Amino acid sequence: MTTQISISRQDMLDCHSRIEPHVYRTPVMTSRQLNEYTGAELFFKCENFQRTGSFKMRGATNAVLSIPQSDRNRGVVAHSSGNFAQAVALAAQIVGVEAWIVMPANAPLAKVDAVKSYGGNIIMCEPTAEARELEAARVVSEKGANFLHPSNDLNVIMGQGTAGMELLQQRPGLDVLVTPVGGGGLVAGCALAAHYFGGECQTVGGEPMAADDAWRSLQSGKIEFNETTNTIADGLRTFLGDNNFPIIQEHVERIIRVDEDEIINAMRWIWERMKIICEPSCAVPLAAILREKEHFAGKQVGLVLSGGNVDLDNLPFG
Amino acid sequence: MTTQISISRQDMLDCHSRIEPHVYRTPVMTSRQLNEYTGAELFFKCENFQRTGSFKMRGATNAVLSIPQSDRNRGVVAHSSGNFAQAVALAAQIVGVEAWIVMPANAPLAKVDAVKSYGGNIIMCEPTAEARELEAARVVSEKGANFLHPSNDLNVIMGQGTAGMELLQQRPGLDVLVTPVGGGGLVAGCALAAHYFGGECQTVGGEPMAADDAWRSLQSGKIEFNETTNTIADGLRTFLGDNNFPIIQEHVERIIRVDEDEIINAMRWIWERMKIICEPSCAVPLAAILREKEHFAGKQVGLVLSGGNVDLDNLPFG
Repeated sequence: MTTQISISRQDMLDCHSRIEPHVYRTPVMTSRQLNEYTGAELFFKCENFQRTGSFKMRGATNAVLSIPQSDRNRGVVAHSSGNFAQAVALAAQIVGVEAWIVMPANAPLAKVDAVKSYGGNIIMCEPTAEARELEAARVVSEKGANFLHPSNDLNVIMGQGTAGMELLQQRPGLDVLVTPVGGGGLVAGCALAAHYFGGECQTVGGEPMAADDAWRSLQSGKIEFNETTNTIADGLRTFLGDNNFPIIQEHVERIIRVDEDEIINAMRWIWERMKIICEPSCAVPLAAILREKEHFAGKQVGLVLSGGNVDLDNLPFG
Repeated sequence: MTTQISISRQDMLDCHSRIEPHVYRTPVMTSRQLNEYTGAELFFKCENFQRTGSFKMRGATNAVLSIPQSDRNRGVVAHSSGNFAQAVALAAQIVGVEAWIVMPANAPLAKVDAVKSYGGNIIMCEPTAEARELEAARVVSEKGANFLHPSNDLNVIMGQGTAGMELLQQRPGLDVLVTPVGGGGLVAGCALAAHYFGGECQTVGGEPMAADDAWRSLQSGKIEFNETTNTIADGLRTFLGDNNFPIIQEHVERIIRVDEDEIINAMRWIWERMKIICEPSCAVPLAAILREKEHFAGKQVGLVLSGGNVDLDNLPFG
């Protein structure tokens, strides 16, 4: 399969300059205890501290800013029950355009309130993929709004890749970069970042066993889907897209799958030892490293901590 | 009452140089949302990221390093069910001396394990103040170990004050410095830091209503005690000492008392908005600011986030 996508080194540099005034340059944290335990040097890029609480802010901001001025005024629309919803709402607010966010009726109230607090217009729908897409399509046709895909839009992929670019600037010389794999936007963007700015740095993905569509896609050579998605890592239940898959095929070294206990265990490590809040999805890269310690020992490893939006009233501990 | 204590500006500088190689220079975090809500500029000194998870590492390290070389070899002893236990164990390990930690038999297993992981010798006792003191005294007489008080030892007070010194270096020009008030070591040390290094910076304490001994002590002019301590802020149930009280009388502007709901609410703000883990005791300064917003509006306010050691299986949310 030949890559049809062309995101150049310069495209990524331009993207970073474009979004830099609007997103945080998040800090990189380390943990002496985790380094001792793994025998690796781990560098955590804290996108849980990013605006709106996740890396999605990067891609959303780049996507909104990349809409031609003449089309921007018609606003943007996205469907999401998660972090992309908040990110699009805030990115649109920053740029000064309307955002319509299609959310399932069973979305957590905290997420709905967050979208509202960023000035997003919420459109509730039935909690099915069909209903979401239908509602989003209706907004596109009625308002002329620009539809933003959370992981397959090239501008989103580039934006997410800036997390990797910054980490490689903050900690040059990384041997490996590990990200979670959900819809594929983050891992594809970071793989491009490693390719263009990381020297010999390899990109590895972490994925829940219970939603291992990307792992299977790399095996079969075509985009695979999940029949069930019984994973606590709710950000990683989605599947790859035709834009990010070729990038992943070309630039991602491999995907490590982890089970649910490993995800919760890694999440607990991050909370207890590093004293920071991360989502279950966000703990998957550390779970992958803990699962294959021998593979990472002696290496300088960057991890993207993808997000910190959790429901404190419904935690997997205890 | 005349202050009998003399901790000079130079003493504090020497203390900081002494402990600097062994403790983290913790980062200062901000929250756009909290600044908007309070109308103040809040700067959080993240001692929850300190080694052993709390500011206690500063005082413990200074105390152990301040023991004359000839006495150090007999080791140190402390009684604590909390953060001071871990701090003394690690400080002793760093300096290469034995530590005996007297802990109540009902101390959380995680805290006992943490002390062990730092090489501390644990001595279990009945969960009463008398039993603790008796056991510690026994170690002093049998081993000749040096007893370390968690909040009334001048070297501990100075060590805790380095958190304030660093914050004033990291964010010069603060109008107010707010810390929790438990045994009085942190607030006294930080009040000295503000006095010597903060220009016009005032020091304010935050204290739970349910353990408001320090507030009452400032009213009465003598050290008061708590008859009950029904507060979730378990680090703040103790009372002041004869060394730190005069410093507090002279250099602490006032103490703001907060109720239990305010503590939990502030803790939730820090977890949800800042995405970092803090203990209930650690949330008391923010609770005090949220309670008296009008007092802090328009000011540059430093807060010491004192610690992040929580039991994830027993959280006050939900």
